[in-house]
Amino acid sequence: MASFEVPAEYNYLWTTRHKPTLEIGSGDTISFDQVPEAAGGQFDDYRAGDPIPELDFERLYPMLGPIMVEGAEPGDVLELELLEYESHGWGWTATLPGMGLLAEEFADPHLHIWDFKGSSAADFKGVASVPVRPFLGVLASTPDTDEPQGVIPPGHFGGNIDCRDLIAGTKVFLPVQTPGARLMLSDPHAAQGDGEVCVSAIEAPLGGRMKVTLHKGWSIPAPQFQTPGPLRSGIEDKGYYATMGVGPDLMGAAKDAVRYMIDHMSRRYGLDPLDAYVLSSVAVDLKISEVVDAPNWVVSAYLPLSIMNEER
Amino acid sequence: MASFEVPAEYNYLWTTRHKPTLEIGSGDTISFDQVPEAAGGQFDDYRAGDPIPELDFERLYPMLGPIMVEGAEPGDVLELELLEYESHGWGWTATLPGMGLLAEEFADPHLHIWDFKGSSAADFKGVASVPVRPFLGVLASTPDTDEPQGVIPPGHFGGNIDCRDLIAGTKVFLPVQTPGARLMLSDPHAAQGDGEVCVSAIEAPLGGRMKVTLHKGWSIPAPQFQTPGPLRSGIEDKGYYATMGVGPDLMGAAKDAVRYMIDHMSRRYGLDPLDAYVLSSVAVDLKISEVVDAPNWVVSAYLPLSIMNEER
Repeated sequence: MASFEVPAEYNYLWTTRHKPTLEIGSGDTISFDQVPEAAGGQFDDYRAGDPIPELDFERLYPMLGPIMVEGAEPGDVLELELLEYESHGWGWTATLPGMGLLAEEFADPHLHIWDFKGSSAADFKGVASVPVRPFLGVLASTPDTDEPQGVIPPGHFGGNIDCRDLIAGTKVFLPVQTPGARLMLSDPHAAQGDGEVCVSAIEAPLGGRMKVTLHKGWSIPAPQFQTPGPLRSGIEDKGYYATMGVGPDLMGAAKDAVRYMIDHMSRRYGLDPLDAYVLSSVAVDLKISEVVDAPNWVVSAYLPLSIMNEER
Repeated sequence: MASFEVPAEYNYLWTTRHKPTLEIGSGDTISFDQVPEAAGGQFDDYRAGDPIPELDFERLYPMLGPIMVEGAEPGDVLELELLEYESHGWGWTATLPGMGLLAEEFADPHLHIWDFKGSSAADFKGVASVPVRPFLGVLASTPDTDEPQGVIPPGHFGGNIDCRDLIAGTKVFLPVQTPGARLMLSDPHAAQGDGEVCVSAIEAPLGGRMKVTLHKGWSIPAPQFQTPGPLRSGIEDKGYYATMGVGPDLMGAAKDAVRYMIDHMSRRYGLDPLDAYVLSSVAVDLKISEVVDAPNWVVSAYLPLSIMNEER
């Protein structure tokens, strides 16, 4: 069992053509000082009030890897035991035209910069304090494609799965797609709600360590994980306020639940709707309350009350 | 502020024509010895191994009420402060032909009877122990309809919203639909996962008390609630195992996540798939991990490990 530093070399697309940056064996540990945030530095010079830089999508999602795992074959399972993650105290959350759950209502680009150096929580305009809980949005065995594919859509191979519960202490299981697995890592987040509704989390560079183990004789159809509890430790003490969307389409119900949560946060805390949307993206969780009472389903949006400083 | 016992008289459809069973004022408390389970007694004589009785759908969802709230008008908000719920120690979970998230795979009727008298958890075949956490699936201000409508689909008025977090200690807010609100209560559950995937929870009669308060000058578009935390107190100590469904349709992703959870429970705990489906319905939670990485979304199914007795 050896430890390796992952070289700070980046690739930007899914393809099996990338030259490996590291080769390891099952049981080895890998570490990295910094996985760059998803914009790859394009917001580094932004200051509040500046015009928002137009994103170069070709520079999105700088990925560490591919990391080759000796003996990995399609059909195996790659386990990533997430040992340690640390955010670097800076991050951003943006809305982007045409993207996000409520793209129709929030059509203009918007950028919020977070500064949480030395703190375990990120202040949001004095209204809320969002606990830092770092994780990687992108974890994958590279899909079996020569033809380069964009990183945004996740797949059964994993990739941009953006699951907020993949924090340190979690074991993530990925289905190996290609010989050597070609493990890739990207998209560090300091905090996110289930849903990531405005299209971004607190996008924040992080460093960390993980142990990589190969499982033969076990196959899975899509990513799975085992994560410690309690899931929302430290933010549940005051309970939740929740809004429901009800209707014949889960997507429509999810949109309604978030719309009503934005209304609620605006009324109760004096946030303008765009700020409420941003805060929902980093802290509000979407749950499917019921999906069987045909023809109408219920999606609920949960706001943890302990993150809110006070009601207006 | 007065206290009233809700008469044990039942209605079975949404319509404003029902004769009120009780009239109360804002601030009053109501109590009930028993809200009957959703089958209205049709499984009372069932013993394991018997042929499963064919359900008379006209006897489903016996509802308490309508309870008239003095001064309530459409556009107001009715607050139900849930003070106390107690299950009676017996319940059932069924799959029904053509119903449930995986109706294609599980086409035959199936019935499981739970006995948890004197216990705070319901044993499932020695494999799992599901904490009892009672709530009502149906809470509503009657929709504004003369024409009788079935109880199964929920709506913006509430009704069969089947949200597992509406436990004692929660305040539920309902949009008033008709003069007097015509509050109705039904569908008691002893435990349910977010999603209620097999179409039923632990369907179990309960008694309880709630305080009813009318809010003027505040309108909401659909039910909302404030609930205490931690949400999963007592079942999070061992963390979760979770399976992901990934795809361009939230419903398809939800189905895949549950399919993979059933595979996992079968493999890890030796449950047959039908039993794993039933256990998922009463204890596994569906979360929308991301709904913005177009065109693919992620729904995850979370199994709390503390309810499982041991791995095979």
